[in-house]
Amino acid sequence: MSDLAALADKTRAFIEREVQPVDDEFDGDVEAAGGDTLRVRLQEAAREAGVFAPHAAVAYGGLGLGMEARAAVFEAAGRSLFGPMALNINAPDEGNVHLLEHVATAEQRERFLAPLARGEVRSAFSMTEPAPGAGADPSALASTAVRDGDAWRINGHKWFITGADGASFHIVMARTSGEPGSPGGATMFLVPADAPGVELVRHVGTQDRSMIGGHCEIRYVDVVVPGDAVLGEVDEGFRYAQVRLGPARMTHVMRWLGAAVHAHETAVRHVAGRRAFGTRLAELGMVQQMIADNEIEIAATRALLLEACRELDGGGRAARTTSIAKTFAAEALHRIVDRSVQLCGGLGVSSDLPVARIAREVRPFRIYDGPSEVHRWSIARRAVARIDGAAR
Amino acid sequence: MSDLAALADKTRAFIEREVQPVDDEFDGDVEAAGGDTLRVRLQEAAREAGVFAPHAAVAYGGLGLGMEARAAVFEAAGRSLFGPMALNINAPDEGNVHLLEHVATAEQRERFLAPLARGEVRSAFSMTEPAPGAGADPSALASTAVRDGDAWRINGHKWFITGADGASFHIVMARTSGEPGSPGGATMFLVPADAPGVELVRHVGTQDRSMIGGHCEIRYVDVVVPGDAVLGEVDEGFRYAQVRLGPARMTHVMRWLGAAVHAHETAVRHVAGRRAFGTRLAELGMVQQMIADNEIEIAATRALLLEACRELDGGGRAARTTSIAKTFAAEALHRIVDRSVQLCGGLGVSSDLPVARIAREVRPFRIYDGPSEVHRWSIARRAVARIDGAAR
Amino acid sequence: MSDLAALADKTRAFIEREVQPVDDEFDGDVEAAGGDTLRVRLQEAAREAGVFAPHAAVAYGGLGLGMEARAAVFEAAGRSLFGPMALNINAPDEGNVHLLEHVATAEQRERFLAPLARGEVRSAFSMTEPAPGAGADPSALASTAVRDGDAWRINGHKWFITGADGASFHIVMARTSGEPGSPGGATMFLVPADAPGVELVRHVGTQDRSMIGGHCEIRYVDVVVPGDAVLGEVDEGFRYAQVRLGPARMTHVMRWLGAAVHAHETAVRHVAGRRAFGTRLAELGMVQQMIADNEIEIAATRALLLEACRELDGGGRAARTTSIAKTFAAEALHRIVDRSVQLCGGLGVSSDLPVARIAREVRPFRIYDGPSEVHRWSIARRAVARIDGAAR
Amino acid sequence: MSDLAALADKTRAFIEREVQPVDDEFDGDVEAAGGDTLRVRLQEAAREAGVFAPHAAVAYGGLGLGMEARAAVFEAAGRSLFGPMALNINAPDEGNVHLLEHVATAEQRERFLAPLARGEVRSAFSMTEPAPGAGADPSALASTAVRDGDAWRINGHKWFITGADGASFHIVMARTSGEPGSPGGATMFLVPADAPGVELVRHVGTQDRSMIGGHCEIRYVDVVVPGDAVLGEVDEGFRYAQVRLGPARMTHVMRWLGAAVHAHETAVRHVAGRRAFGTRLAELGMVQQMIADNEIEIAATRALLLEACRELDGGGRAARTTSIAKTFAAEALHRIVDRSVQLCGGLGVSSDLPVARIAREVRPFRIYDGPSEVHRWSIARRAVARIDGAAR
Repeated sequence: MSDLAALADKTRAFIEREVQPVDDEFDGDVEAAGGDTLRVRLQEAAREAGVFAPHAAVAYGGLGLGMEARAAVFEAAGRSLFGPMALNINAPDEGNVHLLEHVATAEQRERFLAPLARGEVRSAFSMTEPAPGAGADPSALASTAVRDGDAWRINGHKWFITGADGASFHIVMARTSGEPGSPGGATMFLVPADAPGVELVRHVGTQDRSMIGGHCEIRYVDVVVPGDAVLGEVDEGFRYAQVRLGPARMTHVMRWLGAAVHAHETAVRHVAGRRAFGTRLAELGMVQQMIADNEIEIAATRALLLEACRELDGGGRAARTTSIAKTFAAEALHRIVDRSVQLCGGLGVSSDLPVARIAREVRPFRIYDGPSEVHRWSIARRAVARIDGAAR
Repeated sequence: MSDLAALADKTRAFIEREVQPVDDEFDGDVEAAGGDTLRVRLQEAAREAGVFAPHAAVAYGGLGLGMEARAAVFEAAGRSLFGPMALNINAPDEGNVHLLEHVATAEQRERFLAPLARGEVRSAFSMTEPAPGAGADPSALASTAVRDGDAWRINGHKWFITGADGASFHIVMARTSGEPGSPGGATMFLVPADAPGVELVRHVGTQDRSMIGGHCEIRYVDVVVPGDAVLGEVDEGFRYAQVRLGPARMTHVMRWLGAAVHAHETAVRHVAGRRAFGTRLAELGMVQQMIADNEIEIAATRALLLEACRELDGGGRAARTTSIAKTFAAEALHRIVDRSVQLCGGLGVSSDLPVARIAREVRPFRIYDGPSEVHRWSIARRAVARIDGAAR
Repeated sequence: MSDLAALADKTRAFIEREVQPVDDEFDGDVEAAGGDTLRVRLQEAAREAGVFAPHAAVAYGGLGLGMEARAAVFEAAGRSLFGPMALNINAPDEGNVHLLEHVATAEQRERFLAPLARGEVRSAFSMTEPAPGAGADPSALASTAVRDGDAWRINGHKWFITGADGASFHIVMARTSGEPGSPGGATMFLVPADAPGVELVRHVGTQDRSMIGGHCEIRYVDVVVPGDAVLGEVDEGFRYAQVRLGPARMTHVMRWLGAAVHAHETAVRHVAGRRAFGTRLAELGMVQQMIADNEIEIAATRALLLEACRELDGGGRAARTTSIAKTFAAEALHRIVDRSVQLCGGLGVSSDLPVARIAREVRPFRIYDGPSEVHRWSIARRAVARIDGAAR
Repeated sequence: MSDLAALADKTRAFIEREVQPVDDEFDGDVEAAGGDTLRVRLQEAAREAGVFAPHAAVAYGGLGLGMEARAAVFEAAGRSLFGPMALNINAPDEGNVHLLEHVATAEQRERFLAPLARGEVRSAFSMTEPAPGAGADPSALASTAVRDGDAWRINGHKWFITGADGASFHIVMARTSGEPGSPGGATMFLVPADAPGVELVRHVGTQDRSMIGGHCEIRYVDVVVPGDAVLGEVDEGFRYAQVRLGPARMTHVMRWLGAAVHAHETAVRHVAGRRAFGTRLAELGMVQQMIADNEIEIAATRALLLEACRELDGGGRAARTTSIAKTFAAEALHRIVDRSVQLCGGLGVSSDLPVARIAREVRPFRIYDGPSEVHRWSIARRAVARIDGAAR
């Protein structure tokens, strides 16, 4: 067995032994299960088990895996809703680690990246805004940062900011030039959560409950940060967002794929152990059809995912490939989990089995990280541009 | 406007004014919103508004509507998750009223039906059992009732018994002859909830939260009931279950149709009021496709529902028609609500809008009242039998 | 049995006895089967059987049925691909009869409607144009008619003109005011097929082969017609097209529903008579699922169709209802036939059974009479307008 | 550019220049286009272009590509319905070359494989039987071969035998032990097509028209072949069928993927060049959705295909992987082509564009090479066995 396969197996065993029982006991509700106290405990266990931070650089205590290598490990972690948190590969921290590794200065790495990679703190990625601000259409960005001497003064209104409650710092996207509706002119800022003017308005009451720190509504009211709070270059925020986005989409797919596989296996186990109509449920044709459709869509999701990961590992932006893989996966995983619910019958909508809670958690993935419709628009435009180009 | 249309309008106005605000405030969680206290208050308001108990006989304080007439009124009530409770047309009470009207003796009507129809008490219909008992396959019925002089002694284990917590009485299905796996030999019993040996084990933790009294696990341990507790004839329970089933399926469709229409209209209002990518969301083709698919499936659900209702009103058992309408509706309504969620974007998975909670509540309908797979099996067998018959 | 049910039964028996054998022998290829010679022979047989022209007024030798009454009879006729031709209820003649009954003058009726209703001649409805002319978007109408003294001079280029080869006259839609892209200003003209300047360019090679007279490309080059060739009022052509359209959509659904039901029953008979894997194919769950899905979608198509017919019989334009029914039906019927093909295995794609040919014929229905996408656009716009209206 | 990419490009250029024009002229009807005369001419051209027989061993004049390498080249060939024939990689010849390379003796290779690989002759694979013989369930094999001294006497009835008309030899599967219904006991025989007793009954009239030699019904009546006509070992026929099957499934996917991509690109070109409703069709959301869905499903098909090819190249049987890839591809390619038809509107169902004919040709792929239902049954059983195994 390869080292990688061994690591994936070790991760899976760790999840089943240490994490899944807590997930089951608290029906995937991370706050009920202890919140950051639970996080610290599980991360300590993961460190001991040698499966902590597979994505982070070795220098920061991680395992230094590339994208293709992450796939199997992240999928194993995703089998429990709390698994990614245990390995410190949850959104948005995992994507922020990736972003900071690519864009941050040495000082910023020391101050923000190192403790984040080690699990000492959490972070938030503060981009999405209420209408008419930046949502599916990022160019509508309305939050602003204006120079104030050497410093910057940030004002803005954000929501659906995952993990913001309890985060140590926010990466805030604000407009530094242009007007809402114009694509350019965004800048990223590293903003300490306790900076004056950072106001946590509320938790948006989303249906998922496994993400630590919730999905928050935030106001930035005259938040002043020094010049070295700029992440990368001024006005290059949208480009960095793309740097973060491709891999972040794929790690989302990895984690949710693990959850979907867990739902599927739970369902197969259920129908393999039940009898009705004089036969084992697993022998009934309509049941077999659902199982087979799950197997097919799991295989297709994995195949698209790995292809995109190889392209990313090869240095490509992989915008098209990751967009296709994300869109397919978000919809396929939803169908897989929905079939798993159906296969489990009444238990499928109960908390006696994990499938209902996985369904609850995976649904938003068709909306988060770009709704399927926006991805399809972008995929179609590329296809038409290819034909237009060939016609010239 | 016809009297019926006027009643439906009045019902809708009542729901929007008195019920929906509570639903919104408590995100459809009936216990959080007050449970039976809320029920009594809303039912009193419904009585004052003249929309209470549209299904019950006039003699019992109802409006005496037939099935086709109920469709529009129940749909209007279903627009809020608490609406059916307010009108006293919730499952299982509504179906139990129907069943008792058809099968109960005069004494049973006086004792059980009258207070139920008037909303003074709630009831449960106790049929479903944990594996290997009666689930999708009712012939697996394992609970037993044996004669004990003039009385009956009931033993059994049930679950997913909707509304059992707080119910005044249970209609319990128990085997009085034959063995599990043999289709015949079930009898229905009227069992007071406070009879010795009736044990509420727990609430099964289902994802829906709007059904008062929950979905409970119950044990009947040597519960003794007198001879006049038999509902209808001994050994005729499966036949009565069918009497209850056809209309109960259709009233489920009516109520959930109302919920789905509410989700759809919420979504249309959302996209009609938002702009992105330089246009109103409602002008985007992929958005229009979802809206149109919703409109089409709402129309198809209504058309199938009304056809089945007319057959029931004409005195037919309508087993095939209601099975087709239920199966189509359960799946179409789920798709309608899912598209509504998608149309609302991030808000669609939040409690800021009612769509996420409607999605949560409507999902189990593909499993309750016969999973889609069992209905398809039955529909297909009839189709093959028709061809076999024609071939003879 | 009602008179109507008796007529539908008589029609079905006639089709099975006289029409289906020809359809089977020539695999639904109307030209190979004899073209107009076959048509005349089958129509004579239909007349003798008392099932001819159920839609036409009694004065013209028809049975004078309304829309709802037509549904069962047209469906019975549609069971063979040649059935509608045998009853003289084929497109476009059937829709033209309807249009002429509503719009034509007494003289026009005598000259055009009477012989058409009696099956003495065939006709064409000449509206669709090659790009950039009138297609899915009728307002792009490019053909023109200009006054020339008391006469009109028509120039235009049309295609997909069903039945044009062998038609006695064309109803030609031409622009009499406005510019392509502006919605108004169309007029309908009754043009004899042998008028100078009417040029049949070719048959467009479409995949279907059952429509007599094919789908033709036509040029009108300085075709001069007298003033009384105008059908209805000048500049009212688009309105008349709508008069024709609603019912024509529904009779299309009726006919194709018959074809789909024939495919379905063929498939059920096939799986009921075959064994594999140690059982009858009809007992296999995945087979049952396809059968049940067909039954469900047949029922939903019928329910939507009848609802739209009742609205039309009540005098409504039924634009929304017929649009919904057409869109649902065109897609559902395609799926039904596709499942029927799949159920028949290898034979399903052969000419040994009628299912492959029905699949070939029914596919274009999702495009003809308005592509599904245009219907969805229109359905969505109405839904949004309803909300916009309510918001005011 | 890699050698492989260069070869794929060269193949595509060859197809567009030499093959597609003939395909277009004759609407994909290979007999109308010249049958074997066309084949010989196109294969000569392919040889000159250096793209002939990419799959065959170099010793036999081929290019010796492995499975993964074939994927891009076969896809390029599949862009025209006549492309695979031109490269000599059509079914069943291509699969027979593969089978003979793995199983045949040196003498059999010289006599049968060499001329087949060089395109001098064609062949048939004679396995499928009419009911109740071997169809979706191979164990029902009813044809028999009995020893007659050193020779074998074959009797059987086969149909859907692709390419049989004009084939030089048949690989005939016959039962040499066991009874129909028992899985074992099949043997493969190399039977010259002109052997006494080989009777071509008819062409089964299937909807596709691009496969040279058609799909034939054959009777073998006391056909006597010598002992060295046995291919491989006696009674090992089912095992060899599996050897042939995995790769043959994948090359089918490659070829049909090419056809589907050609349909898709045709459709994108169509909507990129047309205007309606005041915009380019390619800018309409519902059009973009279809384009994007095609792009996504093309990518998923390729990803699953390549994964299975790598497993085959690594020496695996890849039964599960190829079954998943085949099932997904057969259904996805059908949807892709169907959307392409829809995107082209009226032209989509005409012979003016290639999409209607591609739809006609690709439909049977969901039935040939194992219907989707049989693959799903097999995929589900493996999944359940995995869980059963883990539970032990």
